[in-house]
Amino acid sequence: MAILVVGSVAFDTLETPSGKRERVLGGAATHFALAASFFTKVRVVGVVGDDFLLEHEAVLTSRGIDTTGIEHVPGKSFHWTGSYVKDLNAAETLATDLNVFAAFEPKIPESYLDTEYLFLANIDPVLQSRVREHMPNAKLVAGDTMNYWISAHRDNLLKVLRELDILVINDNEARMLSGETNSLRAAKGVLALGPKSLVVKYAEHGSAAYFSPHSFSDGFDHNQFRAPATPQEEVVDPTGAGDSFAGGFYGYIASQGKLTPEVFRKAMFYGCVLGSLSVEAFGTDRLQRTTRAEIDQRFEHLKEISHL
Amino acid sequence: MAILVVGSVAFDTLETPSGKRERVLGGAATHFALAASFFTKVRVVGVVGDDFLLEHEAVLTSRGIDTTGIEHVPGKSFHWTGSYVKDLNAAETLATDLNVFAAFEPKIPESYLDTEYLFLANIDPVLQSRVREHMPNAKLVAGDTMNYWISAHRDNLLKVLRELDILVINDNEARMLSGETNSLRAAKGVLALGPKSLVVKYAEHGSAAYFSPHSFSDGFDHNQFRAPATPQEEVVDPTGAGDSFAGGFYGYIASQGKLTPEVFRKAMFYGCVLGSLSVEAFGTDRLQRTTRAEIDQRFEHLKEISHL
Repeated sequence: MAILVVGSVAFDTLETPSGKRERVLGGAATHFALAASFFTKVRVVGVVGDDFLLEHEAVLTSRGIDTTGIEHVPGKSFHWTGSYVKDLNAAETLATDLNVFAAFEPKIPESYLDTEYLFLANIDPVLQSRVREHMPNAKLVAGDTMNYWISAHRDNLLKVLRELDILVINDNEARMLSGETNSLRAAKGVLALGPKSLVVKYAEHGSAAYFSPHSFSDGFDHNQFRAPATPQEEVVDPTGAGDSFAGGFYGYIASQGKLTPEVFRKAMFYGCVLGSLSVEAFGTDRLQRTTRAEIDQRFEHLKEISHL
Repeated sequence: MAILVVGSVAFDTLETPSGKRERVLGGAATHFALAASFFTKVRVVGVVGDDFLLEHEAVLTSRGIDTTGIEHVPGKSFHWTGSYVKDLNAAETLATDLNVFAAFEPKIPESYLDTEYLFLANIDPVLQSRVREHMPNAKLVAGDTMNYWISAHRDNLLKVLRELDILVINDNEARMLSGETNSLRAAKGVLALGPKSLVVKYAEHGSAAYFSPHSFSDGFDHNQFRAPATPQEEVVDPTGAGDSFAGGFYGYIASQGKLTPEVFRKAMFYGCVLGSLSVEAFGTDRLQRTTRAEIDQRFEHLKEISHL
C-alpha cells in the first residue's frame, strides 16, 4: 500500500568528523521517502525553490517515488547548516534558512487522495492537522515532531497527537513531551497524550515501542518491544538517521497492509537497518546505493545478534 | 559448578531520590554473590571488620553462600557514602572509608582451591593477578575493574586483562580503556588488550557482548550479542546493579558447566534480570527477597519484548 509523507525537502550543509559537504539533498521527507521506497510506493508532499533541479528530483524518482506533490515555487529551498564536529550524537545548528519552506502550505494532489498510509514528518503541527483532515481515507497515520513544537506550539501539537496511530520520536523529545526523565514513565506519559502507539529512538542504543490497548485491533495491550541498533564502527553523517528509521519502519508496515504485533516488531528492525545505513555516508548517498537484499541481510544480522 | 568471587564486602550509606539509608550491606562481592547464588554455589574471599556482625553474614549464608573466605580483622569494614540525588545514572561519592579493606590481602581457603569459575571483582589489579595465580584449577576467569585502576594502575591492569576469559565493564570504562568514543571501536580496542570476550554494560540501554576468535572452543568468531535491559519505572538504588548483573551472568554460566554461544547469550539475559531486580530496593534488599521463579519470569519477559 502506498504511503504519503508530508515534510521538508531541503538542502543541508554539513560538517562532521568525516568532512564537509555543501548543499547536499536532505530534509525529513526526502530521507523518509528514500528509506520507505525499498518497501512500498511513496508519495511526497513538500515545497522547493528554483535551486531544486531535475538532478535532485531524479534522486527520488529513480527510486520510484512519486514527486507530483512537491510544489515548485520561486525562491530558494529550505537550507539547513549544521555541525557534528563537537558531538556526533548532537547536531549543532549553525543556520536555518527556511526560505520557501517558511510559507509552506501543503497541497495534496488529487492522485494522492486514496493513500491509506499517512506520515506527518516534523513540520508545524497546524499543517500536520490540516493534512490529516484532507486525507479521510488514511487508515493509519503516523508522525514525528521536534523540541521546538513541543515547547512553543504545545496545544497545536497535542491536537495532532490525539489523531496519531503511531508517534515516532527521540528519547529527549519523549522526556520533554511528558516531563518525565525515566524512559518508561516518559513513554507512558506520551501515550497518555493520545497516540495509540509510541516509538522512541535511543540513537546508538536502538529503539523501543510502547503500546496501548488501542495499538492493535485485537484490543490487547502488548506492553512493549525493544529493538537493538546495528552497531556502527563509523558514523559519517547522522543527519536524517531518524527520518530513515521512520521510513524503513513505516514502509515495511505499509507493505504488509495490516498492523499486527509481529509486523510492528519487524518494522522496528527495518527502521534500525535503514537508520544504520543512512549514517554511513553524507546526505542521501548511502540510501541511494543500497538494495533490498542488503537491507534484508542487515535485518537478519540484527536478529542474529539479538535473539537467544 | 562453584564460583569463587574475590572483592569488597562493605557497608554503604546511600542517598537517592527515593530516600536515605545508613550503613546497609553492600560491596561488589556481596551483590555478585547474592545474584550468582540463584544459579550455583558461591564462595567469597573478602575482608571485614568488627562491625560485620552475624546478621550481615547471615544475609549471605541464608542463600547458601560459603563465607569461609571472608576474613575478620580488627577495625571497621569498608564504608562507602554516595549520592544519586543529582543523577540516578551517576553516583556521586561523598566518602570512601577503606578501613580494613586498605590492607586487604586475599587469602584463599584450602576448601576453595578446586573452584573452576573465578570472578575477580573490582579490586587492585595486583591482587587480582595474585588470586588468579593461586587458582590454577580455575578453568574460566572473569573480572571487572573501574576508572581508578584504568587511569592510575594501567600496567598492572593490562597484565590482568591478558589473563581474563571475560571482562565485564561499563560503557565509560570501555571507552577509557580503549581511548575510543565509538562503542564498537571501543569494544574492539578492549578486546585487543587481551580478554577473550568482553561484556559492556550500557545501564538502562542493556548490554552487549563482543567476541574474539578465542571466546569459544569452536574457534569461530561469533561477532557479538546485544541484550536489552528490563525497562524500570522506578529505580530506588542503583548501587550494585553492575555487580548483580555480573553475578547473574556468571552464575548462569557456571551452572551450565560449559561456555557455548547459547549459554553466553542466555547469561547476558540473566545478568540483565539480576541487575534490574537489584535496583528496586536499597542495598541487597531486593535480591534477598527474590526467587528463581521470579528471575525466570523476568527472563521470559525480556525475551518476549526483544524477540520478533
